[in-house]
Amino acid sequence: MRHYRIPNETVRRLPIYLRGLAMLSQSGNASVSSQKLADFVSVNAWQIRKDFSYFGGFGTRGVGYDIENLSKQIKKILKLAVVHKTALVGVGNLGSAVLAYPGFGTYGLSIAAAFDNDPDKIGRKMNGITVEDVSRLNTLGKRDVELAIIAVPEQAAQDVADALVAAGIKGILNFSPRRIAVPKNVKVITIDIATDLARLPYYIPSS
Amino acid sequence: MRHYRIPNETVRRLPIYLRGLAMLSQSGNASVSSQKLADFVSVNAWQIRKDFSYFGGFGTRGVGYDIENLSKQIKKILKLAVVHKTALVGVGNLGSAVLAYPGFGTYGLSIAAAFDNDPDKIGRKMNGITVEDVSRLNTLGKRDVELAIIAVPEQAAQDVADALVAAGIKGILNFSPRRIAVPKNVKVITIDIATDLARLPYYIPSS
Repeated sequence: MRHYRIPNETVRRLPIYLRGLAMLSQSGNASVSSQKLADFVSVNAWQIRKDFSYFGGFGTRGVGYDIENLSKQIKKILKLAVVHKTALVGVGNLGSAVLAYPGFGTYGLSIAAAFDNDPDKIGRKMNGITVEDVSRLNTLGKRDVELAIIAVPEQAAQDVADALVAAGIKGILNFSPRRIAVPKNVKVITIDIATDLARLPYYIPSS
Repeated sequence: MRHYRIPNETVRRLPIYLRGLAMLSQSGNASVSSQKLADFVSVNAWQIRKDFSYFGGFGTRGVGYDIENLSKQIKKILKLAVVHKTALVGVGNLGSAVLAYPGFGTYGLSIAAAFDNDPDKIGRKMNGITVEDVSRLNTLGKRDVELAIIAVPEQAAQDVADALVAAGIKGILNFSPRRIAVPKNVKVITIDIATDLARLPYYIPSS
């Protein structure tokens, strides 16, 4: 099932809604209005309703959204209903933080393998995962790993991306500030923490 | 100057455009069409034109956008025309990665101070910055620091946020998966790397 009309920006917000719904569910809520969800995830209520309209709505006016059903629908759309194995490349400071990150389970995601080129790190067990030599990236295809996270220094990012693509990886989360080139059938999402910090001054009242 | 009508989602994209423009400028471009910028930053061209329309357009049909002028306008809107000092709280794996991150300069942002509660880290110099005791967070107001990044363990995030607010910090980038409560006049942006990874499966063709 692929919904071709869904804008990338809507796809970007769906996991944010999913996380908000998980938190609301944990606090004992069974349903939620678009306005309450909006306040909770800091997205406008009209935007939420518009995003949900791409999939046929989900809600009943006046009653709000059923949290369990809505979460199930969003997971299905995002193809998160099955667990996706993810490889991490680079276990320096950033990679180690990613390995220890507690938030992946909410989305059926799990770090299944970790790689580095540092002999001191290869063979070490970190958060239950034994770090492997990057030369073994070519084994990922056979191991049902579909996604990868790149957390290597900027100048190594393209070589790692090439090896991941050659191994059959179809989706990459790139933490290096460098743009990486991949074939059209591979999706890359680049995280730049500076762009997020750069939004803050807008909201600060001028003194 | 404050533009009340600008949607949060547009503000979120402006730094992404700014980074794209900086890269295009470095490659020798003086102007760019909305379509080329769109391809470069992976946002739809109509969305870019709509975002820019909130500030009066910027472009001339057929000629494209003047990169230098457009960058200057966006920086002004985002209040990035002056340097904003930022404090980092927590220099574990994630905080160390943030300290070493090369991308802040593009936006006139700089990490001016770093804090931790670990006696082994306090007093150590990391990336040119001496790590201070968190008990000194109350000095930030006097030091012209306006923004802060929280990179501490989940259970410590709220206490740190409270101390930052008490010190007069007006904008917080929160890396902990926990929601933090702050007064209405303080802006918090929470980064959850899991929500970004959770978008990838959507784009992977079903096998």
